[in-house]
Amino acid sequence: MNGAESLVKTLLASGVDTCFANPGTSEMHFVAALDRIPGMRCVLGLFEGVVTGAADGYARMADKPAATLLHCGPGLANGLANLHNARRANTPVVNIVGDQATYHRPLDAPLTADTEGWARPVSVWTRTATRAASVGADAAAAVQAARGAPGGVATLVLPSDVCWDAGGRVAAPLPDLPVPKVSPDAVQQAARVLRSGQPTLVVLAGAALREAALADAHRIAAATDARLITPMSNARVARGRGRLAVERIPYSGEAARTRLAGIRNVILVGAPPPVTFFAYPGQSPRPYPEDAVIHVLARPEEDLGEALARLADELGAPKVQPSAGGPRAEIARGAVTSEAVAQTLTALLPEQAVVVEESVSFGRAFYPGTVHAAPHDWLQLTGGAIGDGLPLATGAAVAVPGRRVVALQADGSGMYTLQSLWTMARERLDVTVVVLANRKYAILLGELAGVGANPGKTALDMLDLGNPDLDWVKLANGMGVEAARAADMESFADLFRSANQRKGPFLIELVI
Amino acid sequence: MNGAESLVKTLLASGVDTCFANPGTSEMHFVAALDRIPGMRCVLGLFEGVVTGAADGYARMADKPAATLLHCGPGLANGLANLHNARRANTPVVNIVGDQATYHRPLDAPLTADTEGWARPVSVWTRTATRAASVGADAAAAVQAARGAPGGVATLVLPSDVCWDAGGRVAAPLPDLPVPKVSPDAVQQAARVLRSGQPTLVVLAGAALREAALADAHRIAAATDARLITPMSNARVARGRGRLAVERIPYSGEAARTRLAGIRNVILVGAPPPVTFFAYPGQSPRPYPEDAVIHVLARPEEDLGEALARLADELGAPKVQPSAGGPRAEIARGAVTSEAVAQTLTALLPEQAVVVEESVSFGRAFYPGTVHAAPHDWLQLTGGAIGDGLPLATGAAVAVPGRRVVALQADGSGMYTLQSLWTMARERLDVTVVVLANRKYAILLGELAGVGANPGKTALDMLDLGNPDLDWVKLANGMGVEAARAADMESFADLFRSANQRKGPFLIELVI
Repeated sequence: MNGAESLVKTLLASGVDTCFANPGTSEMHFVAALDRIPGMRCVLGLFEGVVTGAADGYARMADKPAATLLHCGPGLANGLANLHNARRANTPVVNIVGDQATYHRPLDAPLTADTEGWARPVSVWTRTATRAASVGADAAAAVQAARGAPGGVATLVLPSDVCWDAGGRVAAPLPDLPVPKVSPDAVQQAARVLRSGQPTLVVLAGAALREAALADAHRIAAATDARLITPMSNARVARGRGRLAVERIPYSGEAARTRLAGIRNVILVGAPPPVTFFAYPGQSPRPYPEDAVIHVLARPEEDLGEALARLADELGAPKVQPSAGGPRAEIARGAVTSEAVAQTLTALLPEQAVVVEESVSFGRAFYPGTVHAAPHDWLQLTGGAIGDGLPLATGAAVAVPGRRVVALQADGSGMYTLQSLWTMARERLDVTVVVLANRKYAILLGELAGVGANPGKTALDMLDLGNPDLDWVKLANGMGVEAARAADMESFADLFRSANQRKGPFLIELVI
Repeated sequence: MNGAESLVKTLLASGVDTCFANPGTSEMHFVAALDRIPGMRCVLGLFEGVVTGAADGYARMADKPAATLLHCGPGLANGLANLHNARRANTPVVNIVGDQATYHRPLDAPLTADTEGWARPVSVWTRTATRAASVGADAAAAVQAARGAPGGVATLVLPSDVCWDAGGRVAAPLPDLPVPKVSPDAVQQAARVLRSGQPTLVVLAGAALREAALADAHRIAAATDARLITPMSNARVARGRGRLAVERIPYSGEAARTRLAGIRNVILVGAPPPVTFFAYPGQSPRPYPEDAVIHVLARPEEDLGEALARLADELGAPKVQPSAGGPRAEIARGAVTSEAVAQTLTALLPEQAVVVEESVSFGRAFYPGTVHAAPHDWLQLTGGAIGDGLPLATGAAVAVPGRRVVALQADGSGMYTLQSLWTMARERLDVTVVVLANRKYAILLGELAGVGANPGKTALDMLDLGNPDLDWVKLANGMGVEAARAADMESFADLFRSANQRKGPFLIELVI
């Protein structure tokens, strides 16, 4: 058994049975091993950003890591932006990067790069395999590290000779690392703050946004008047009719500060202290009042669900019934607005859909406007590295066949990783892509206005995606995805309804 | 004057007047400054790999650096692969990466990443600006560092507050750093080796591949029977009718070893010791015999043209007349082969064309088969990080308006940075893109065969770009580039001839 075979067998034994790949020469022995050993689903991406973003989306829905297969330092580099997003989402990913043979690397062949150095900032664990005999054990350790709460990217650099050398040994799966429980002190301190009657914000993130944890959070809020909120961007939120809704901190620092005025305490549940996305001259980078006191109920790596349950019990808080949500919404008609799209989504979103949203500017009404849609999971760009939406949708669809994935995708960010469409077509993934085509970097036009200058031609040209207009129907067709264009809400509703009923992907270019 | 304005004015004063950009929020003050200060041509790319590859192509043809404008660590990450290629090409690039405000960075907002750490492996110079008062001086230093022989990537990380703070000061251009001349000892040692009569290889790279330097290299070869050769991949080679041709080291290690058998001495002129692209079990990673002796006439940072001239003089070598190259070739007819494409290129290539080649497998006959084409420059992928061809073509076309750029682009690598087509359309660049559509990763099929296994379905699926077929005509149209498909050499010749006569880009999908 060569090293590559021991690696594949160890991954399978450790429960990793899906590999998003864009291989190169140095990975050919790994590819050959995948051929000989059944059980690994291999999904090809035509660009590494697709591969890493899909691995992120897969694990967010599968609750276990996929493997990637990338080619040398530059292949890793192409996948770094979406690994950055995965890092911010605390997503488990077993990130395998093929590389030069151990004895070839010092010769500095053209592809040689600082593979480990590039991987380290996005990884909770980084190792370069050195021998066929130990690469199985390396793989088992990588899976364990990736799965360790709250989850992270474990990068295994894989020199080609480690793959082709004989003497590979399959390693037994390593046990999951224990998830630390919060201390009784932290629970009691949070309870004291909540009982004080002072305006208190509870910031929920990560595993606190799953259905059971949210139910306990609502017990706490109902018993104490605490205000529940989530960060602007979250890996996965359970929401929709019959579930309890939580608002997000607004993207704009000014809106956030207005929204959080008067808050005296901030209790963190798996979240970092809130911070604005960017700094602006003369504005505070914190969205909460400067004199608010930060308390930590649970750190991201602790058992967040258990922490909320214990706090709710400590407070003697009874269960809360979610509201029925009223009659089912009608589809919107007429002009395309953010609110109209949210209304139609509420009317037509399939049960248990997975919504992937990458549309900060036009999409402002989508999240608040869809609380009464059918139950669904909502996935977002977590690290601000745009170009994550289409890959996330790809990976999510691989993870949960039978559930419709709806990608709400701005055109500017969609162009970063449009190659995802080809993988959707090839794998016949049940994804409805809605491209929100405003043909500009709308968010940056707002930011430029904030700079105070009267923007001139040079600046406007740099934020304009028209000249020429992108034709998303042709782009989709060029990669084997059927597509159509809508310019009013009636035709959008027709297309959206029929898209969600078909097998395989469909793209709607919604001109806004 | 704010920091951003002082930066733009300093760049212009230092001769940097072109900026390839994909800006974000943290760059808005820089964008606003570009508006207020005339003279900088801004070229927008819809993905950072387009931006950095275009900056590489621009400088290879303009012989001076362009600036980039990237957005934070993840934006840099998306551009790293083509900066890796630029590093291997020794291309001067002033790589500007906007980033979080100095006081915002410690708060670890979602986009915060290890910007400097990611930049360093591809950069000859890396600095994070800290004050508006000194960012002008930082920019002047960056230009000087990028231009320092043999050229490299100088990365300036630009926190947003450094841009918006008042007190910016324009810095005077710094002088070019002196280019070291080779020592008389090195020249005499090389002359001794060449006079010894032993089979000797002279490896030419970088500036040794410009027209005047090549003429001196041919004097040396004619006077001594030395064998001239270049690395497999080169930043820019002057070639075509009336110029002296130099062969390349073959890509395949086996072919290279056969070709270089019997060599006793290797003289390096701006080149590293030759090494195979990848290692293979049981094969030497060196393409030359193990007992060959390596000599260095000139290191990459030395004056290569002057070194060759002095060596030719030392040898008393007379001038060599290039051969006339015979009658102009006829276009090829019938089936599409690598040799047929080379023949048609030889017949139809416009005078002073810039050829950008990224087609290692099908393109094997292109380079040897076009030595008698009209005089042209030939640009290649230098670092093996695929997805450089279309961006290089974009940047080259910006650098030398009036010269036709011909991009010979494999389909698999073309998909990495297909967003380049939009920039070509927007800037109406005179580029003829020939996509060589074999609908597979052909080079990897060869590598997989080399692994010895009988490839099965899993492996073949991972190297197959069919299912679904990419439709490059639709992809091009979707980004505003006119396009057509050719499946035989007659229609290819018709399309190629007319494409080269039009203003602006045209894409030919050549089904092979």
